[in-house]
Amino acid sequence: MWKPYRYSHLTIHEQIVDWIKTRIGQGDWSVGTKLPTQRQLAVQFDVNRSTIQLALDELKADGLLESKVGSGVFVANNSWNMLLDRAQPNWHQHIESSIHKPNYHTIKLINKYEQLDDIIRLGTGELSPELLPTKQIELSLRSISLESKAIGYSSPQGSEKLRQILCQYLKKRGIETTPENILIVSGALQALQLIAMGLLEEGSIIFQEYPSYLNSVHPFQSAGMRMISVSRDAELTDKLRKLKGKRQSLFYCVPTLHNPTGDNWSLDERIGLYNVCKELQIPIIEDDVYHELLFESPLPAIKTFEKSGQVLYIGSVSKTLSPGLRIGWVVAPTPVIERLADIKMQTDYGSSAFSQEIVAYWFSSGLYEKHLIQLREQLKRRAAFVEDILERQFKEIASWKKSEGGFYIWLRFHEPIVNKALFLNLLKQNVLINPGYIYDTNDLHHIRLSYAYASIEELNRGLNVLLDLLTEIT
Amino acid sequence: MWKPYRYSHLTIHEQIVDWIKTRIGQGDWSVGTKLPTQRQLAVQFDVNRSTIQLALDELKADGLLESKVGSGVFVANNSWNMLLDRAQPNWHQHIESSIHKPNYHTIKLINKYEQLDDIIRLGTGELSPELLPTKQIELSLRSISLESKAIGYSSPQGSEKLRQILCQYLKKRGIETTPENILIVSGALQALQLIAMGLLEEGSIIFQEYPSYLNSVHPFQSAGMRMISVSRDAELTDKLRKLKGKRQSLFYCVPTLHNPTGDNWSLDERIGLYNVCKELQIPIIEDDVYHELLFESPLPAIKTFEKSGQVLYIGSVSKTLSPGLRIGWVVAPTPVIERLADIKMQTDYGSSAFSQEIVAYWFSSGLYEKHLIQLREQLKRRAAFVEDILERQFKEIASWKKSEGGFYIWLRFHEPIVNKALFLNLLKQNVLINPGYIYDTNDLHHIRLSYAYASIEELNRGLNVLLDLLTEIT
Repeated sequence: MWKPYRYSHLTIHEQIVDWIKTRIGQGDWSVGTKLPTQRQLAVQFDVNRSTIQLALDELKADGLLESKVGSGVFVANNSWNMLLDRAQPNWHQHIESSIHKPNYHTIKLINKYEQLDDIIRLGTGELSPELLPTKQIELSLRSISLESKAIGYSSPQGSEKLRQILCQYLKKRGIETTPENILIVSGALQALQLIAMGLLEEGSIIFQEYPSYLNSVHPFQSAGMRMISVSRDAELTDKLRKLKGKRQSLFYCVPTLHNPTGDNWSLDERIGLYNVCKELQIPIIEDDVYHELLFESPLPAIKTFEKSGQVLYIGSVSKTLSPGLRIGWVVAPTPVIERLADIKMQTDYGSSAFSQEIVAYWFSSGLYEKHLIQLREQLKRRAAFVEDILERQFKEIASWKKSEGGFYIWLRFHEPIVNKALFLNLLKQNVLINPGYIYDTNDLHHIRLSYAYASIEELNRGLNVLLDLLTEIT
Repeated sequence: MWKPYRYSHLTIHEQIVDWIKTRIGQGDWSVGTKLPTQRQLAVQFDVNRSTIQLALDELKADGLLESKVGSGVFVANNSWNMLLDRAQPNWHQHIESSIHKPNYHTIKLINKYEQLDDIIRLGTGELSPELLPTKQIELSLRSISLESKAIGYSSPQGSEKLRQILCQYLKKRGIETTPENILIVSGALQALQLIAMGLLEEGSIIFQEYPSYLNSVHPFQSAGMRMISVSRDAELTDKLRKLKGKRQSLFYCVPTLHNPTGDNWSLDERIGLYNVCKELQIPIIEDDVYHELLFESPLPAIKTFEKSGQVLYIGSVSKTLSPGLRIGWVVAPTPVIERLADIKMQTDYGSSAFSQEIVAYWFSSGLYEKHLIQLREQLKRRAAFVEDILERQFKEIASWKKSEGGFYIWLRFHEPIVNKALFLNLLKQNVLINPGYIYDTNDLHHIRLSYAYASIEELNRGLNVLLDLLTEIT
């Protein structure tokens, strides 16, 4: 008789969920089957009833099981559930099979708990509600005038007006472009999705640094692409030469305020990557959504080195103005933009015309620049606050680099203690962290600490809960 | 030596484009190859130089060829183009191989020419700029108050406030539901995309009526699903029984103001479909985006017949308030909603918070209902205007049913004259139609006439150009 294995990398209840899913999947337990009672299952598996409860709840939430009052738990039966059972879209299979399971489960838990109100979010990569210029946006709505053509179905590349304004805006970043080379997207993540769908085939290689943000959102993994992580060091050029092979490939990078580490690539590193990628004909995706949050002036974007269209550049207002706008942009050669625009039209017929109007207004009126100055000040103050706590309380057990801007401190513990148990124990105390292993499976040393989301008081409280827990463990 | 075939279903220039693509694809013409001159190609293929020009222009727009001033046309070479050449994402392959080519090409032309300003659009399924309540929306922006939480990243199912308001709104349509059973989407097309990705597998069967709107947007076809068209007649039940087999399947329908025919299903037909689908466990997608545009009161939605979650219901404000909002909704059982919400979060992190606020305000303030009353009046007047022209000028050659609401008149010509040549000849005179064959490949009798988009004056002029051309032909 099967029993959960105590030393698995999966928790007990995850093993039970898997076991029951297998029973249903293989038809051992067909639709309508009544399950053994919780007590029977607890005895059979030699676990607590609460663990059984947790597993059954998860399966019910997935629609695989249903309770009938007074008569027990059954394998659920309705038309949709049959679809839900059987439908295994490619992307889902890819994720579930390719991503390390506890990693994937942690990300699901983070997404879930971020919705709850009484959680202290120490890792959230988002501006705190108090940092959003909510009242100013509300006021600015009064000054927006609409044209009927603008609120019909969008042209495939997005509002012409906004793309014109973006050309001016990008000039300040050193990027010379035209409206024809810009695609408006619903945030940077959508840009990555469109690239995965429109430019790559299954098995294509995506090079990335490790740790990498991509491991926590997997737009490429879910489309069946192979991720290869490389370090940004003296051997990078040789490694790319060796690894590239005949497969099509792309290099994804966040050279300015890297997510999750907060690192900034040096000018030499930027030029070096550009040169080797040009030589090997590896297109570059430069994700530049954080550059306006640098406390000092940023180094030039890689996109500024070139005219040949080697670099696809991504920007967004989600990190600076409001994620709720869902507005980002891609700058690339025209054929690439047209391909991506074509797919976007087939996906959602364009981004919200109203969001595009608001962004156009904020950029052209100068409100945006004014807001950025204040925002950087506030983030700087928050960074200093957290660094002060770290300095006083975490110095013995961890190290970190002073933040140069953005949202994050990549806190490194001397001991490999940042595992799933720590994550779950903190969750029990209503503290949510982004552990390093969601950005690099083998990393048990880091936490991505965000000083941008939680309130000052919550940051203090959350870090103390973390410290207490670590003191208990060690 | 290859020459284009005069009697192919493809035009001459399409055949030449295909032939050159094959040369490049097979590596006969590798990157950097100089093409023969236009004159040489014209002689070789025995066609006009203008036809060669057209083919080369299309290939340049696709990024496969490039002109170098003074030295000729070359097979293009840059990193992105190599990706563009080789990347054949599944969905694209599916479309290009499965959809009848002239059909697909016509749709591409429609999308392209709809962007131009001096085109008379006789088929566009969109409210005319003059029917959009642009000024009222602009004014309403002044009354909207924002909360910081609402303009951060959205919860997976969309704004709680809007979902609450939608429950009230749906009650008027006879649908009782809860916020947990609603997902906010960026328009109805995104709902279909999410269903294709999240609930179905390649080879699943989608039943639809013919003609069908789905043939012109192909969200399911592009995901590898099989479309089966059935007629809504006495044999429907028997046919579904026979065709269903063991594959998973769905029935997609637009029972109220069907697109493209404008038909309304009778109450018996609605109940009949519901009963057979329930018996055969075929979930139903009810696309109800047009019901508020009926000139008389609508019949109950199929969704109102049931409590078991057999029907997935789709609504939107794109046809009534503004397509630029990109806001629609899905009503379905919770596990289905959660699955779709999960995929939506991985696609675009939710719909625009600002668009959601605007829709919430319009629904809750009563502005929306007032606007609908005026809108129906204006559409009725436009329908009467077009029907009057038809009555006076098209009676001998075509037949139609008096419009009961919405945007469309499904104009049937006695002779099978609505072919691609007619479409292209009209385009030469700046008149764009939606021919029946994009909704049903074998249909050469119909045009989907829309009285909603073009101005009254353009409707008149466009119909006269059409009539003149038909008189020339026959």
